[in-house]
Amino acid sequence: MYGQMSRPLIVFLLILSVCQSIHYEPNWESLDSRPLPSWYDEAKIGIFLHWGVFSVPSFYSEWFWKRWKDGEPSVVNFMKQNYRPDFTYADFAPMFQTEFYDPNKWADLFQAAGARYVVQVTKHVEGFTSWPSKYSWNWNAMDVGPKRDLVGELASAIRNRTNIHFGVYHCLYEWFNPLFLQDTANKFQTNDFVMRKTLPELYELVNKYEPDLLWSDGDWMGPDWYWNSTIFLAWLYNESPVKDKIIVNDRWGYNTRCKHGGFWDCADKFNPGKLMPHKWEDCMAIDKQSWGYRRTTTVDELYSIKELIALLIEIVSFGGNLLVNVGPTSYGTIAPIFEERLRQMGSWLDVNGDAIYATKPWTYQNDSMTPGVWYTSKAGTSGTEVYAITIKWPSSVLTLADPVVSIDTTVSLLGYSGSVKYKPGVAGGIEIYAPDLNIEDIPCLWAWTFKMTGLKNA
Amino acid sequence: MYGQMSRPLIVFLLILSVCQSIHYEPNWESLDSRPLPSWYDEAKIGIFLHWGVFSVPSFYSEWFWKRWKDGEPSVVNFMKQNYRPDFTYADFAPMFQTEFYDPNKWADLFQAAGARYVVQVTKHVEGFTSWPSKYSWNWNAMDVGPKRDLVGELASAIRNRTNIHFGVYHCLYEWFNPLFLQDTANKFQTNDFVMRKTLPELYELVNKYEPDLLWSDGDWMGPDWYWNSTIFLAWLYNESPVKDKIIVNDRWGYNTRCKHGGFWDCADKFNPGKLMPHKWEDCMAIDKQSWGYRRTTTVDELYSIKELIALLIEIVSFGGNLLVNVGPTSYGTIAPIFEERLRQMGSWLDVNGDAIYATKPWTYQNDSMTPGVWYTSKAGTSGTEVYAITIKWPSSVLTLADPVVSIDTTVSLLGYSGSVKYKPGVAGGIEIYAPDLNIEDIPCLWAWTFKMTGLKNA
Amino acid sequence: MYGQMSRPLIVFLLILSVCQSIHYEPNWESLDSRPLPSWYDEAKIGIFLHWGVFSVPSFYSEWFWKRWKDGEPSVVNFMKQNYRPDFTYADFAPMFQTEFYDPNKWADLFQAAGARYVVQVTKHVEGFTSWPSKYSWNWNAMDVGPKRDLVGELASAIRNRTNIHFGVYHCLYEWFNPLFLQDTANKFQTNDFVMRKTLPELYELVNKYEPDLLWSDGDWMGPDWYWNSTIFLAWLYNESPVKDKIIVNDRWGYNTRCKHGGFWDCADKFNPGKLMPHKWEDCMAIDKQSWGYRRTTTVDELYSIKELIALLIEIVSFGGNLLVNVGPTSYGTIAPIFEERLRQMGSWLDVNGDAIYATKPWTYQNDSMTPGVWYTSKAGTSGTEVYAITIKWPSSVLTLADPVVSIDTTVSLLGYSGSVKYKPGVAGGIEIYAPDLNIEDIPCLWAWTFKMTGLKNA
Amino acid sequence: MYGQMSRPLIVFLLILSVCQSIHYEPNWESLDSRPLPSWYDEAKIGIFLHWGVFSVPSFYSEWFWKRWKDGEPSVVNFMKQNYRPDFTYADFAPMFQTEFYDPNKWADLFQAAGARYVVQVTKHVEGFTSWPSKYSWNWNAMDVGPKRDLVGELASAIRNRTNIHFGVYHCLYEWFNPLFLQDTANKFQTNDFVMRKTLPELYELVNKYEPDLLWSDGDWMGPDWYWNSTIFLAWLYNESPVKDKIIVNDRWGYNTRCKHGGFWDCADKFNPGKLMPHKWEDCMAIDKQSWGYRRTTTVDELYSIKELIALLIEIVSFGGNLLVNVGPTSYGTIAPIFEERLRQMGSWLDVNGDAIYATKPWTYQNDSMTPGVWYTSKAGTSGTEVYAITIKWPSSVLTLADPVVSIDTTVSLLGYSGSVKYKPGVAGGIEIYAPDLNIEDIPCLWAWTFKMTGLKNA
Repeated sequence: MYGQMSRPLIVFLLILSVCQSIHYEPNWESLDSRPLPSWYDEAKIGIFLHWGVFSVPSFYSEWFWKRWKDGEPSVVNFMKQNYRPDFTYADFAPMFQTEFYDPNKWADLFQAAGARYVVQVTKHVEGFTSWPSKYSWNWNAMDVGPKRDLVGELASAIRNRTNIHFGVYHCLYEWFNPLFLQDTANKFQTNDFVMRKTLPELYELVNKYEPDLLWSDGDWMGPDWYWNSTIFLAWLYNESPVKDKIIVNDRWGYNTRCKHGGFWDCADKFNPGKLMPHKWEDCMAIDKQSWGYRRTTTVDELYSIKELIALLIEIVSFGGNLLVNVGPTSYGTIAPIFEERLRQMGSWLDVNGDAIYATKPWTYQNDSMTPGVWYTSKAGTSGTEVYAITIKWPSSVLTLADPVVSIDTTVSLLGYSGSVKYKPGVAGGIEIYAPDLNIEDIPCLWAWTFKMTGLKNA
Repeated sequence: MYGQMSRPLIVFLLILSVCQSIHYEPNWESLDSRPLPSWYDEAKIGIFLHWGVFSVPSFYSEWFWKRWKDGEPSVVNFMKQNYRPDFTYADFAPMFQTEFYDPNKWADLFQAAGARYVVQVTKHVEGFTSWPSKYSWNWNAMDVGPKRDLVGELASAIRNRTNIHFGVYHCLYEWFNPLFLQDTANKFQTNDFVMRKTLPELYELVNKYEPDLLWSDGDWMGPDWYWNSTIFLAWLYNESPVKDKIIVNDRWGYNTRCKHGGFWDCADKFNPGKLMPHKWEDCMAIDKQSWGYRRTTTVDELYSIKELIALLIEIVSFGGNLLVNVGPTSYGTIAPIFEERLRQMGSWLDVNGDAIYATKPWTYQNDSMTPGVWYTSKAGTSGTEVYAITIKWPSSVLTLADPVVSIDTTVSLLGYSGSVKYKPGVAGGIEIYAPDLNIEDIPCLWAWTFKMTGLKNA
Repeated sequence: MYGQMSRPLIVFLLILSVCQSIHYEPNWESLDSRPLPSWYDEAKIGIFLHWGVFSVPSFYSEWFWKRWKDGEPSVVNFMKQNYRPDFTYADFAPMFQTEFYDPNKWADLFQAAGARYVVQVTKHVEGFTSWPSKYSWNWNAMDVGPKRDLVGELASAIRNRTNIHFGVYHCLYEWFNPLFLQDTANKFQTNDFVMRKTLPELYELVNKYEPDLLWSDGDWMGPDWYWNSTIFLAWLYNESPVKDKIIVNDRWGYNTRCKHGGFWDCADKFNPGKLMPHKWEDCMAIDKQSWGYRRTTTVDELYSIKELIALLIEIVSFGGNLLVNVGPTSYGTIAPIFEERLRQMGSWLDVNGDAIYATKPWTYQNDSMTPGVWYTSKAGTSGTEVYAITIKWPSSVLTLADPVVSIDTTVSLLGYSGSVKYKPGVAGGIEIYAPDLNIEDIPCLWAWTFKMTGLKNA
Repeated sequence: MYGQMSRPLIVFLLILSVCQSIHYEPNWESLDSRPLPSWYDEAKIGIFLHWGVFSVPSFYSEWFWKRWKDGEPSVVNFMKQNYRPDFTYADFAPMFQTEFYDPNKWADLFQAAGARYVVQVTKHVEGFTSWPSKYSWNWNAMDVGPKRDLVGELASAIRNRTNIHFGVYHCLYEWFNPLFLQDTANKFQTNDFVMRKTLPELYELVNKYEPDLLWSDGDWMGPDWYWNSTIFLAWLYNESPVKDKIIVNDRWGYNTRCKHGGFWDCADKFNPGKLMPHKWEDCMAIDKQSWGYRRTTTVDELYSIKELIALLIEIVSFGGNLLVNVGPTSYGTIAPIFEERLRQMGSWLDVNGDAIYATKPWTYQNDSMTPGVWYTSKAGTSGTEVYAITIKWPSSVLTLADPVVSIDTTVSLLGYSGSVKYKPGVAGGIEIYAPDLNIEDIPCLWAWTFKMTGLKNA
């Protein structure tokens, strides 16, 4: 009986039960029961980096190699016009020189952008590893091209900063790896590729760089049992050096997306347009046509900062995270056009970060009446704070249908120290009087946040 | 006697005197007497393009070669880190491949930017000619690298468009040309370099591409008589295929700047801060540190669009033209960051072009009282129009000291169809009531133009 | 009972037992019991080809990479003088272009040289496979550099010719393969390298190209049990598509040389100077300093044809084969200096081949009295033929101590149709009267063969 | 009157007349009257070196560029297969790296070959100068590629050795020089190319390197007056720093070969087959298909040493010099196959040099009866020595029709210390008894020299 245990014993047992990690079984039911480490939902914004041998041709997209072999005319023609007939994709690797790569500069930029995590592509479908993998000899960034550990260098730079996490993208499948092609030809009755390549390098990656996030991809070519996903995840959650903090996504087999794993990331540019029963993420690239750097990108192919901010607001309102991709150059820089977008995003977050970071979706996601207004909420010192973020500056009065005012309701504009007046709406809701601000005095561009406290329905 | 001439004879003689071009003598007095073709002053805005072998290293600046040989540590170190010890500057040329160069795309962009002329660097101090010059064998864009006539292709693209002129930049001196070094060593008592290189290629350039503008540079290393400048200009004005339309600048010898030639262009980033007794131009680069493309450029090293518009306004108020430089890449593109600046400038000019193109300085250049307000003027259908361009949106009333209102005075805001009210200022001048515009409704960003007609002192 | 079997049955059973392959066990006792296929001993002369990524720098030797990393000053300096600091060995691979490689030309040359087999390096210690191996992705001649199957092409060309066999050299160990380094670090308690790389590619090589000879190397870094040598050889002898014809050497572990496997090849440039109890081979390179092509080779570093012929004679006298190496160029040619040596060797063999091919050592290997005379022998139609090959043309009489003449003894000079006189030596042996031949009329250069039949002690 | 002059005055005047050089006029009559400096006729054997940008493709021949542009299929195809479509000839230049070029090694080799002069191609028809010419900026070996003065380095190495002279080959015309093409288009009514390029660089070459020999070529494209040949030669003979020692050939205009200038060199591989009225030279290449190095050369395309020695003997018998060409590699070596030929030639000359160097043609050039026997002669200490050089070793007696023996006649075999017997021929001439030499003891291979003194008709 309980009452009879000595006090010290009880304390000891309590400590034990806390310290003792739960042991996960290699099946989805068990693995899916693991709670997501909280840092991820609070972070909201990450930076995605697609960087690899494809950054050398910097043409078409990071799927350059595949499209070339598929016969995509623009790529085939590019090769014909600019290279000797027998030039191979691997011949590009020595030109990947990253001579200006300064991971500290990058890390500073990502912080200035307001990002709370970074996901670096460490191996894309081309199979080239950005770290010196034992399992990718002479097809990695130390053995050919940069002669540097591109992953290790960025991991250190990110770790030396506070309030930002380091994650790795890893692609399970490789277009042209002969072991994979053989397994496929064998209808997955063999798994040499997984045993000799995918898994060893996953273990290596986790053990060597201890990432906070593992962003899996390339899963769709095989089922979870081919990839040995549950066994790997059980190790990751039970035994790996990052078992307590690691976050993964849901790309662990063609049968797992939006079903199993960590956060949901069901498709590229995933935006469900509603609340989801599970934490999710929208990954998208500023260059609408490519994740990797393209030398031919023009401005009309890019997200404007206005579009980017609008997307961020919408995603966060629906409970998602936004992972914003930029493709670095083969010489190791973030092109100024991307730098500008990121710094603009950061400047907006400097003003409006309270409405984004660590928030939860509110009862309503966008206003029932006025379009272009999105809600988030957060527990404040004096009750729940509700944020209405509008992507259109209200001409005079902002009428919102969903907040229900109380006698204690206060309204303020983030970045504006003056008071903001309101009155209850005629048919419920609230009517907020936008301060009469000159262009010079509005606290930010692109979108504006009205913070409400003391709402009846907060 | 006059009265006795037959009518036809008189008409004939009149026609003759009109058709007969004035003949200029090869001296400054005569050459300086030539009126500048009017298109240039009306154009106001040009695009400057620094593109050459220096675009291959794309490091430090277009003075890369000189600085390397001078021992500039960053350049020396760049070479050490990235090239074999015996790598020479000329070894870069084959890597200048311009594979994405599409002059029609460029020309479209320059038009969208609101530019009315383009000045392409056809030969910089490195001596490499972007056209297949007979006098620069194997050191030109047809013989090595691009295998294209970079000048001819752009000239055609520009000519196929209306309202935009084609100009060429040409550098008289070449850092390391042995003939020039020899002339220098001979204290200019020889001029082999000029006779065998500079002049032949200038004639070739003019005859082959018939530019509207010839932008000379590199003059400061020798006197006008060394360069044979007056003789060349006499040919240019009297006999060349472009004698009627050609515009030149004033860089024809260390003794000529801001004294002789065409428009004054006394120094890079020349801004006198006042009216000048002669037409002048301010050439400046969006990248504050380089005219040529740099792969390491960061956003803080660039003119913001706000700064660029402000500069444009100031320069035009003082009667200058603004020549805005961008450095294309070695692969033949205008980087998106520059494209964005140019398109933003174009979007501003779409609204405010009336206050810029074909204007003249007004009596006052900037307002005597309110800072950040600049004036231009133009003959309108109902008298002189005066434009007050302000780089700060007025909170409510814009008070101007210099315009004197009359009973006929009208005020409008460019890009805004509503009426703008005003009253005479208490101590003279005018008080303009800025329309109460929401952020969404203001016609442009960065600067705004109030057009006034019917001023007493217009 | 035996006596009661019908004659046909006995014959049938006998045939069966001959046709039925013996089954070899994966231990040396069993494997060593396999008789060597006879073609190999009869062949006597092979061509060895060292060709790989090391053919690109073509400097120092095929051990370039290792020596560079070891700090060999000449190699370190070569890299410093000629490449960017971060240039890696793998960066050389795209320059391996083999643009002039014409395997039919090579095969013709090897036949003209009198070679009866060819041993192509298919993978050297650098690990680069000259065939498109599934187990060496992006580090093979199809994926990077040549974009060709260098092995398959030569195999076909050799197969299309008669009287010449195709063999492959394969190096078990790889200097810098991380899996091998790991196994080594684990003191061979793991064998990932062997399981994932060495063995799979050996099976692939044999199954794909069905070589007549497998020349193993790189064995010395581990014991036979690490390499799984006996298991592989049992498969090779019992089940492989080449089980009946394949010949291997003795390099299957640091404990196997000159003990186990096929022919003995105990060391590079192995010449025991006496008869051996087992078939053996001397592999040597015409370039005394390198097996791979060197761009800096000078004539004094090469075997002269005189030396080469002398060596061949000696080796064959002692029962060995001679494997003569030439290093092809990275662009796919056999340099003329090597071509000349090979053609000269062929011209000598055209005359003297009877004394070389398919011979056996005689009772004496070199003459007991006269230096520079070597013996071989062969069963002829009228008894054993003995060949005395002298590397010095006898001034008039060649005195040999070892042949014992009989009344039936005849002597002839290979390549000479005239008769050759002799008399028994005063103290036994034979005195041969060299025909009085003018320089123009001697049948060959470098060495001459007297063929003796009817010797008492043949 | 003579008799009345003082002795010292006479001496002074005599000295004056000796020291005073004859002054040559710029016309052929005068220029042709200049006696050839004696060193050249005595030298007999030179080495020709074709080395330039064409050594990079090392394909087809040194006329690669021209043939490519002419559409020669093998060259066009080579470019298509191995380079990007827009690759230009000038793009090859940076790959000309000469990393192993060691002029002292070369000079040692040329001496070992028995050569008494060297003629280096300093500029071929491609126009690339192997020295840092002021008149070929960025198209010379210092500015692009080697970053070395290839001419200066070899000139020094040769000068530091005795008994060997340094010469330069210079091509007057350049296939694609636009100035030359313009002069041609103008039917030579302009001579910009000659004035700005050819002549300045000729003066520079002579003044800078003070060569002993100037080997002109490319003359055939224009007449002597276009090239200004006589004016240049007058300067060369009267005023240049090499006026006393310089030798030139006859290629100074399409109207000058075998008529004017220095030695005659009427065509490549010129061999008149008889005595000429003027000193002449046969230039030929060991590679029968190319003067420049070819990577695809095979042995059957080369002169054998036997052929080379035979040619040398014949040429010298007819009073010519032999200029033997080898093409160095782009990396700066003499390929071993050429080294071997040269060293073999040297070894022959070590024995037979007395019959070659400083000899004169004899009354007869080859024997009237016995084919393959060639004569040279020389003033010896005891009368004229006559050399009969036979390319076929005489079986026993060498019968010669032309030498008439006297009582004092002696015969010896060069390289053989024994005595050589002879008797007068039955029908005149001489019968020489070849010493009964074993293969080992003959003094040389390929050809043998019988030296005769005391001939009646010497």
